[in-house]
Amino acid sequence: MPLKTAKQYMKSLESLHPVAYILGDRVENVHEHPLISHMTASVARTFELEHDPEGAKHLVAKSDLTGQDVSRFVKFYTSPDDLIAKVRMLKFLAQNIGGCYMRCTGMDAISSVGIEVFNCDQKHGTKYWERFVNFVKTAQDQDLVVCSGVTDVKGDRAKRPSQQKDPDMYLHVVDRNKDGIVVRGAKIHQTGSLCAHWMLVVPTREMRAADKDYASCFAVPTDAEGVIHVYGRGTLEARALQNCDLGNVRYSKFAPMVIFKDVFVPWERVFLDGEFEYAGDMVRNFGNYHRHSHGGCKCGVGDVLVGAAATAAEYNGLNDVSHINTKLAEMLKVTEAIYGCSIAASIESTKTPSGIYNVDPVLSNTSKLYEGKELAEVYRMMIEIAGGMVADIPSDRDFANPEIGPLLDKYLKGIDGVPTGDRVRIFRLIEKLAFESRDIVSNIHGGGSPETHRMTILRNSDIESKKRLAKNLAGIKDNGPKQAVS
Amino acid sequence: MPLKTAKQYMKSLESLHPVAYILGDRVENVHEHPLISHMTASVARTFELEHDPEGAKHLVAKSDLTGQDVSRFVKFYTSPDDLIAKVRMLKFLAQNIGGCYMRCTGMDAISSVGIEVFNCDQKHGTKYWERFVNFVKTAQDQDLVVCSGVTDVKGDRAKRPSQQKDPDMYLHVVDRNKDGIVVRGAKIHQTGSLCAHWMLVVPTREMRAADKDYASCFAVPTDAEGVIHVYGRGTLEARALQNCDLGNVRYSKFAPMVIFKDVFVPWERVFLDGEFEYAGDMVRNFGNYHRHSHGGCKCGVGDVLVGAAATAAEYNGLNDVSHINTKLAEMLKVTEAIYGCSIAASIESTKTPSGIYNVDPVLSNTSKLYEGKELAEVYRMMIEIAGGMVADIPSDRDFANPEIGPLLDKYLKGIDGVPTGDRVRIFRLIEKLAFESRDIVSNIHGGGSPETHRMTILRNSDIESKKRLAKNLAGIKDNGPKQAVS
Amino acid sequence: MPLKTAKQYMKSLESLHPVAYILGDRVENVHEHPLISHMTASVARTFELEHDPEGAKHLVAKSDLTGQDVSRFVKFYTSPDDLIAKVRMLKFLAQNIGGCYMRCTGMDAISSVGIEVFNCDQKHGTKYWERFVNFVKTAQDQDLVVCSGVTDVKGDRAKRPSQQKDPDMYLHVVDRNKDGIVVRGAKIHQTGSLCAHWMLVVPTREMRAADKDYASCFAVPTDAEGVIHVYGRGTLEARALQNCDLGNVRYSKFAPMVIFKDVFVPWERVFLDGEFEYAGDMVRNFGNYHRHSHGGCKCGVGDVLVGAAATAAEYNGLNDVSHINTKLAEMLKVTEAIYGCSIAASIESTKTPSGIYNVDPVLSNTSKLYEGKELAEVYRMMIEIAGGMVADIPSDRDFANPEIGPLLDKYLKGIDGVPTGDRVRIFRLIEKLAFESRDIVSNIHGGGSPETHRMTILRNSDIESKKRLAKNLAGIKDNGPKQAVS
Amino acid sequence: MPLKTAKQYMKSLESLHPVAYILGDRVENVHEHPLISHMTASVARTFELEHDPEGAKHLVAKSDLTGQDVSRFVKFYTSPDDLIAKVRMLKFLAQNIGGCYMRCTGMDAISSVGIEVFNCDQKHGTKYWERFVNFVKTAQDQDLVVCSGVTDVKGDRAKRPSQQKDPDMYLHVVDRNKDGIVVRGAKIHQTGSLCAHWMLVVPTREMRAADKDYASCFAVPTDAEGVIHVYGRGTLEARALQNCDLGNVRYSKFAPMVIFKDVFVPWERVFLDGEFEYAGDMVRNFGNYHRHSHGGCKCGVGDVLVGAAATAAEYNGLNDVSHINTKLAEMLKVTEAIYGCSIAASIESTKTPSGIYNVDPVLSNTSKLYEGKELAEVYRMMIEIAGGMVADIPSDRDFANPEIGPLLDKYLKGIDGVPTGDRVRIFRLIEKLAFESRDIVSNIHGGGSPETHRMTILRNSDIESKKRLAKNLAGIKDNGPKQAVS
Repeated sequence: MPLKTAKQYMKSLESLHPVAYILGDRVENVHEHPLISHMTASVARTFELEHDPEGAKHLVAKSDLTGQDVSRFVKFYTSPDDLIAKVRMLKFLAQNIGGCYMRCTGMDAISSVGIEVFNCDQKHGTKYWERFVNFVKTAQDQDLVVCSGVTDVKGDRAKRPSQQKDPDMYLHVVDRNKDGIVVRGAKIHQTGSLCAHWMLVVPTREMRAADKDYASCFAVPTDAEGVIHVYGRGTLEARALQNCDLGNVRYSKFAPMVIFKDVFVPWERVFLDGEFEYAGDMVRNFGNYHRHSHGGCKCGVGDVLVGAAATAAEYNGLNDVSHINTKLAEMLKVTEAIYGCSIAASIESTKTPSGIYNVDPVLSNTSKLYEGKELAEVYRMMIEIAGGMVADIPSDRDFANPEIGPLLDKYLKGIDGVPTGDRVRIFRLIEKLAFESRDIVSNIHGGGSPETHRMTILRNSDIESKKRLAKNLAGIKDNGPKQAVS
Repeated sequence: MPLKTAKQYMKSLESLHPVAYILGDRVENVHEHPLISHMTASVARTFELEHDPEGAKHLVAKSDLTGQDVSRFVKFYTSPDDLIAKVRMLKFLAQNIGGCYMRCTGMDAISSVGIEVFNCDQKHGTKYWERFVNFVKTAQDQDLVVCSGVTDVKGDRAKRPSQQKDPDMYLHVVDRNKDGIVVRGAKIHQTGSLCAHWMLVVPTREMRAADKDYASCFAVPTDAEGVIHVYGRGTLEARALQNCDLGNVRYSKFAPMVIFKDVFVPWERVFLDGEFEYAGDMVRNFGNYHRHSHGGCKCGVGDVLVGAAATAAEYNGLNDVSHINTKLAEMLKVTEAIYGCSIAASIESTKTPSGIYNVDPVLSNTSKLYEGKELAEVYRMMIEIAGGMVADIPSDRDFANPEIGPLLDKYLKGIDGVPTGDRVRIFRLIEKLAFESRDIVSNIHGGGSPETHRMTILRNSDIESKKRLAKNLAGIKDNGPKQAVS
Repeated sequence: MPLKTAKQYMKSLESLHPVAYILGDRVENVHEHPLISHMTASVARTFELEHDPEGAKHLVAKSDLTGQDVSRFVKFYTSPDDLIAKVRMLKFLAQNIGGCYMRCTGMDAISSVGIEVFNCDQKHGTKYWERFVNFVKTAQDQDLVVCSGVTDVKGDRAKRPSQQKDPDMYLHVVDRNKDGIVVRGAKIHQTGSLCAHWMLVVPTREMRAADKDYASCFAVPTDAEGVIHVYGRGTLEARALQNCDLGNVRYSKFAPMVIFKDVFVPWERVFLDGEFEYAGDMVRNFGNYHRHSHGGCKCGVGDVLVGAAATAAEYNGLNDVSHINTKLAEMLKVTEAIYGCSIAASIESTKTPSGIYNVDPVLSNTSKLYEGKELAEVYRMMIEIAGGMVADIPSDRDFANPEIGPLLDKYLKGIDGVPTGDRVRIFRLIEKLAFESRDIVSNIHGGGSPETHRMTILRNSDIESKKRLAKNLAGIKDNGPKQAVS
Repeated sequence: MPLKTAKQYMKSLESLHPVAYILGDRVENVHEHPLISHMTASVARTFELEHDPEGAKHLVAKSDLTGQDVSRFVKFYTSPDDLIAKVRMLKFLAQNIGGCYMRCTGMDAISSVGIEVFNCDQKHGTKYWERFVNFVKTAQDQDLVVCSGVTDVKGDRAKRPSQQKDPDMYLHVVDRNKDGIVVRGAKIHQTGSLCAHWMLVVPTREMRAADKDYASCFAVPTDAEGVIHVYGRGTLEARALQNCDLGNVRYSKFAPMVIFKDVFVPWERVFLDGEFEYAGDMVRNFGNYHRHSHGGCKCGVGDVLVGAAATAAEYNGLNDVSHINTKLAEMLKVTEAIYGCSIAASIESTKTPSGIYNVDPVLSNTSKLYEGKELAEVYRMMIEIAGGMVADIPSDRDFANPEIGPLLDKYLKGIDGVPTGDRVRIFRLIEKLAFESRDIVSNIHGGGSPETHRMTILRNSDIESKKRLAKNLAGIKDNGPKQAVS
C-alpha cells in the first residue's frame, strides 16, 4: 500500500533541495526554517490522518488506474460520489487543522488537466493522456504531494500574454528540443510549493493563436534546476520567528512566489504544448474544481470559527445570550451554504469523455461567491462575539515576566474555573484565524476573484431559457428579437 | 394506473361542496369563482404534467406500498434519491407555474406524520401506522390532492395552548366517542384548502401533558361537516375580479383560513390522540421537510424572476449592460444557494425507524433562511433592473380604450421589434411576482419564521464539538467548565 | 397671508377640469373618484397642517421674494437652514400621512430650475429668471400645488432623444410662434398630477446640440388643452374601489402618466427653450434635491414602519422579545442613516450664483442609495416581526357577515385587551405599507435608479485626491501616470 | 499662544518616565522603542498640523474658559458647530495619518465628565466642576495630550463590579485620606497611553449603590507611581521591529493595558468619588461622543481605503472598469453614511446644564453601527479590488537581495510607467490598513460593541410614539394595553 506516514513524508522532504529565499536570505534546509515548519506540519498531518481510522475513510480511496488504495489527493474524480467524498474530506481536514493543508491545488489540477489532455488527444492525435496517466500513477505509487502552478504574475491586466511589453509576464516556452522544453516566467501565490514534491503547471487563462507558446502544461519537481521559491510574507510573521503567541499552535499556511528561470522539462512530463484551445478549459475546470474544494475546507474552518467564538463567549461569562446565539446561527448559515452548494455541485456533476466528472459550475461558483463576500461577515461576527481583546493582548513573553506576569494573570481572568492562559489562547486563535492574510485573502481571491465567479455563473446559466419561462407565464407569444442577455 | 388527468381533477372538484366564504359572501360553486379558478388551474397543471413526458419523470414515482406508479405528491420519502427527486420536481413545476401549486404541504405532512406514528406505535402499542398507511394508499389509488393543516391561529403567542384564555385558539379534541373524535379550532394560511380533496391536520407545535387534547393528528375531507373555509384576501384581488392585468395569465395561489366548528373525525382517520410527546417532532419534521421543499420551488420561481428581469432589460434596450449582468448573477447566487442546500440536505438525510428518510435539518433550515432574508433582495433587484414601470402602468382597459389606447401603445413602446403589449405584459408579470402578498409573505413565514430556522440550525449543530475543535487548535488541554452554549 | 385651508384647496380643485382616464374610462369629476380621493386627502392634509401650530413651524416659511409667510413647498432653498427645514418638514408629514403627499417634486423642481435659468441668463442674456420668479410668486401668492414633470417615457434606453425612431419618446417642441411654443410627448410616473394646479416640466436628462428641441422647460396648468392624465394602476386597487380593507384609512398615493398632445405654452411660462447645455444640470439638480427630500419622508415613513411592527408584536403577545428588539434597532439604523445623510447634505450645501443653495451630491445620493437597497430590508423586517397574517387575512366584509363574523372575531384575537378589529387593522396597515407598488417602487426608482446614484457619488468624489492620500502614506513619491479612475 | 510644536511635544515626552513593558521586557526610553515610535509620530503629526494653515483651521479653537487659542483636543463642546468642527477635524487628520492619532478618547472624556460633574454639583453640592475646569485649563495652557481610561478588564461579564470574585476586576478606590484616594485595577485597550501626558479615568459602566467605590473619576499623569503600561501586541509587529514592509511608512496605533497598582490621586484631581448615579451617564456620554468621533476619523480612513484601492486598480491596468467603479461607489456609500450621521448628530445635539452640548444618541450610534458592521465590507472590497497580492508579497529585504531582487522587480511589475516598488508599496499599505488588528477590531469594538449601539438606539427612540403614529393611520382609536416595547 503506497501510503506514506507523516514521518516518511518529513523524511522525503530531506531529499529535496529547492532554491528558496526567505525575507531576503537564501535558506538551505528550508523545511526546518521556523517560517516553514508550521506549514510542513499541516501537510504532515494529512499523512498522519491517512493512518487514522476515521481519517482513512476520508483520505484513502481505490485508484481507478491501479486498483490500489491511494491518497485521494492524487486521484481522478470518476463519480459524483468521488466529488462528495472530496468535499467531506476537506471539511474533515480543515476541522482538524484549522486552515489550509496545501494539497488540494494539485488534486484539482490533476482532474482539470486529465479532462483536457484526453480531449486534445481525441482531436489532435497527441499522446498526452498516456503520459499524464503515467505521471498520476507515479504520484499515487509514491504518495507524492503535488501542488499546482496556475497563477501567473500577469503584468498589465488589460493586456493578453502576447501583448505584454515584457513577454515573460506569463510563463511560456522559450525553447524546444528533442528532449523537452525550456520554460520561463513566474507563478505567484503558490500554495505549499515548498511542502510539495512536484508542481503541476497549468496555463492561467484562455489563450489565442498568438499566445501559443503560453499554452503550456507540464510537471516539474519543486527543486528542478532554475526553479526559485521566494517566500511571500504574511501578517503574523513575528509569532513564528519568536515561537510564541502562535494562536494555532501547530499549523499554518504559506504561498511562495515561484520563478521559472529557464527551467527544462522533459517531454514525458509535458502535457500541453501549443494546443491553445485547451488552455481556457483547463483553467476553467481548475477554477470550478477549486471553488468546489473551498466549499469543503472553508466549512470546516467555519466550524472552528464558530467553536472559537462560542468558547470565547463562554470564557467571558456570556453563555446562552440571545444575540450571541443568533450570531452563531448566522455564522453557520453561511458556512453551511458554502458546504451545501459544493455537495450539490457534486450531485449535479457531468461525465466528460475522459471518464472524469466535472462539477456543476453554477453551484460551485455560487459556493465560492458566498465565501468571497459573506464569509467575511462570519469572521467579523466571530470578532464581535469574542470582544475587543482580539486586538491587542500582551504577549506570552509578558506572562512569563516575573514582575507583570502575575498581574496579567490576575487581570485577564474571565469566568471562574477557566485559567487565564486558556482564555488568552482562544483570543490568540481568533486573532490567527481572522488576521492571517494568506487565509483571509484566499477567501476572496483563492480560485479566482468574485467577479470571475459571477461571470461564470452567468455564462453557465441559460438566461435565454429563463426568459422563455417568464414570457410564457406573462402570455407573450413570440420570443421577441433574437438578442441574448449573456 | 391511478394518475388523474387535469380534466378528471377538475371533474372531481365538482363532487366536493365545501362551505366557503369570499369577501363576505357564502359562495356555492367555489371552484368556479374568479378568485379561485386561477388557483385550481395551478393544481390542474400538475395533473396535466403527470402525463407529459418530461413532467412524468419528475411527478410520477413507484409506490413503496403498492408497487404502482403514483403521484410523487402522495408518496413517502424512502431514500435520499426520493428527496432529491422531490426538490427537482418542485423546481420544475415552479418554473412552469411561476409560483405555488399548493400540493407540497400535504406531501411533506405525509412523511412527517408517518415517521412519528411509527415511533408512537413502537412505544405505546397504538395502531396508527396501519391506519395511516391505509390513508396514504387511498390517496395514492385515487390520486387525491391532500393539503396539510398545520398553523393554528395561536392567540397570545406568549402562552401555551392550555394557557390561553379561549381554549379554542389551538385546535383540540372537544369530544370522543366510540366512533371517533370531535375537534374545534381554526387553522390559518391553509394553502390550497379549496383545491384539495383531503386535509391532513397536524399539531402546530410541541405539546406538554397539560396540552394533551391539543396533540391531535387526523385527516378530513375538505367539505366535511363543520369545516368552513374563509378566503383571505391578498394584494391583487381586483385583477382577477376584473379579469385583466393578471401578470401571470393562468396561475395564482391562495391560502384560506379554515375553521373547525366541532368537526367529527372517525377513528380510522385519527393518527394521534393525546400522545403529546410526538406532536413536537411531527411539526418539526414538517418544518424541516417544508423548508427543504421551498429550496426547490423558490429556485424555480427564481428562474422566472431572472428571466423576467432579463426580458424587461432587453425590452428596455439595455441588453448586456455590465451592472445588470452583475445583478442577474447575484440573483442566481441566492436562488442557486437555496436549491443547493436543499439538494445537500437530501444527500445528508437519515433513515428513521419507519423507513422514511428525514432531511438534514441544518442544511434545510439554511436553505430557508436564505429564502427568508436574502431572497427579498432578489425581488428588489428584479424591480431595480426592470425599472419604475413596475409601479403603475395603465390598465389593459386603458389600452382597449379607442381614444387613449393608441397613445399608450405609442408612448409605452420600448425597443424596435417588440410590441408594446408584450413589454407591458412583462411588467405586469414582474408586478405579480413582486407584489402578490401570499407569495412574498410565504417566502418569509412559510414553513416557520426565520427565527425558528436560526434556532433549528443552532440546536442541530453540535456547538460543543466545534468548541473542542477550537480548543484543540489553540492548545487548550482541558475542556473548561461543563457549560454548553446551546 | 396666502395660505389655503384644506377646504379651500378642495374647493380650488373643483375649478380644474383635467382630461383623465381611469381603468379605461374617461372620468369627469376626477377628484371625487374613489381611486383619487385618498390621494387628494393626502395633499389636503398638508394644507390642514399649515394651520396647525406644530405643523406651521415646519410648513410655513418667509418668502425671499415677497417677505410674506408662504408654503415651504413653493419656496426657493436659500440657506442650509432652509434645506434642513425641508428635510424635517418632510419627515414630520410622512409620520402623519404614512406615505407620499405628492408636493415635493414641484418644490424640488422650483429650486432646480431657478439655479439654471439664472446661469442661462448670465451666459445667453435670456430673461428666464424674471419670468420664472413671476411664476414662483404666483404659486406663493395663490398657495398653489405644483407638481414636476420630469420622467419621459424614453423608448429605447440605448438611444438619445434625437436618435429614437419615434421622435416623440421624449417631450419636445414641435412648433413655435410669437405667442409661445407647442409641445408633444409623454411623462410617466407623474406623482400627484391630478392633485396639482400646475405642472413644472423639466428635461429628463442632459441634452446635446442635436437634442435642442428637447431642451425645454415650462409650466402648464394640469388641465391645459391637450394634457391627458392616464391613471396608472397600483397593487391595491380593489380596496379603494370597494371602500374596505384600506390599511391606511385616509391617505394614499398615485402617479399618472401624462400625455402632452400638442400642448400650447405661452412664452411667459417658458423657462428654457433650446439652451441644451442647462438641461443636464437642471435634472441633476432635481435628482440631488429629490434624493435629499426622500431622506426626510422615508425616515418619517420608517417611523411608521417601526411603530406598526412594534404594535403588531405587542398585539401578538411578543412584547420585549430580544430578537424583535434587535430587528427594531436595525430598522431604525437604516431609516436614521437615510435621514442623517440628508441633514448632512444640507449642512454641506453650496451657494449657487442665483442665491439658491445646492445640496451636497455625495451625501444626498448616499442617502438615496440606502433607500434604494437597504430600506427594502426594513420592510422585510417589519413583515418578519408582524408574522404571516400580513399575507391573507379575511376581508372587513367577512367580519361583517353575521355567520362567520363572530367566528373570525373569536379566532383572530391576539392578546387580551386588544379588540380583534384593531389587530386586523394593524396587519392591514402593514400590508398597505409593504405592498403598495407605487410606494415600494418609488423607494428604488424615485429620483433616479440606484445605478445613477452610484455614478453620481463617484463623479462627485474626488478619487484622484484620495489616491494622493494613499500614495503619500505608502511612501510613493511621484503620482504615477496621469490616468484618472473616474 | 499655548500651542506646542511637534518638536516641543517630542521633547515633552522625554520628561515622562512611565513604567512600560513590551513583549516581556521592561523598557526605559519607551518613546524611542521601534514599536512605539510610529505611534508617537502619529501624535506628533497632530501638533505639526496645528501650525499648518489648513490644519490650524481644524485643530485650533478659541477656549471658552480662557479666550485663548487652544487645541480643539482639550476643549469642551459648547455648540453644535463645535461638534461639527470636531468631526471635520478628525476626518482631516485621518486622511493625513491613515489611521488613529490617539487624542480623541481624552477629548471625548473631557466633555463627558464635564456634563456630569456639573450635574453632580447641582444635586450634591460637591465642588467637582471647579476642580475639573482647572484641570482642563491646565491641559489647554500646556497643550497636553490627555488619554481617557475607560475600559476595565471586567472579569466575568455576567457579574456586576461588586459581585466579582476578585474585587479588582473593575478599578476602584481602596483607600481614602485627607490628601486623596488610592485606586487599584486595570484598564485595557488604552489607546495611546504611552503618547499621552495625562490619563482621565472614567467608570466603564453604570454603577449601583453596592458599586459605590467603583464610581470613581480622576486624572493622573501617565507616569504616576504605580501605573504600569503593558504593550498589547498587534498583528504586524515584525514589520516595525525589522523596520521594513511597513505599509504606512510613518504612522501606527497601539493601545496598552494599563495597570493601577495602588495609585495615589490627590483630591484636586478627583472628579467623582462614590456618587454612583453619575457613573452610567458619564460613560454613556463618552460612548455617544466617541461613536460620533469615529464618524469623522473612519470616513477619513475610508478616503484612504478608496484611494488605495483605486491606485492598486490603476497599477494593475484596470482603470475605469465598470465593476470596480461600482465597488468604489459602494465603499464611499458606507464611509459617507458614517460621516453624514455624525454631522447630523451634531446638528441635532442638545445643550446640557453645564453648557456643554451632547450629541444625538440615535444618530451617533447609527453611525457607529455602520462602522461596526458595514465598514468591514468596505475593507473586503478594497482587497477584492486590489487583488491577491495583498496576501503575500515578498519582503523589501528580498527586493534588496542582489540575486532575486532584479527578478522580483521584473516579475512584480504592473502597468508601464509605474515602478514595481510603488506597486508593492500600495499593496503593503492595503495590507496595513486591512490587517492591523488594533484598527480593525476598533472598528467593531471601539466605543462599545454593536449590541450596545443597537440598544442605545432603541432606548433613545421613542417607540411608543411611533406606535401611536401607526395606530392613528390604521384607524385604531384607543392605544391598547399600557405596555411598552422598549
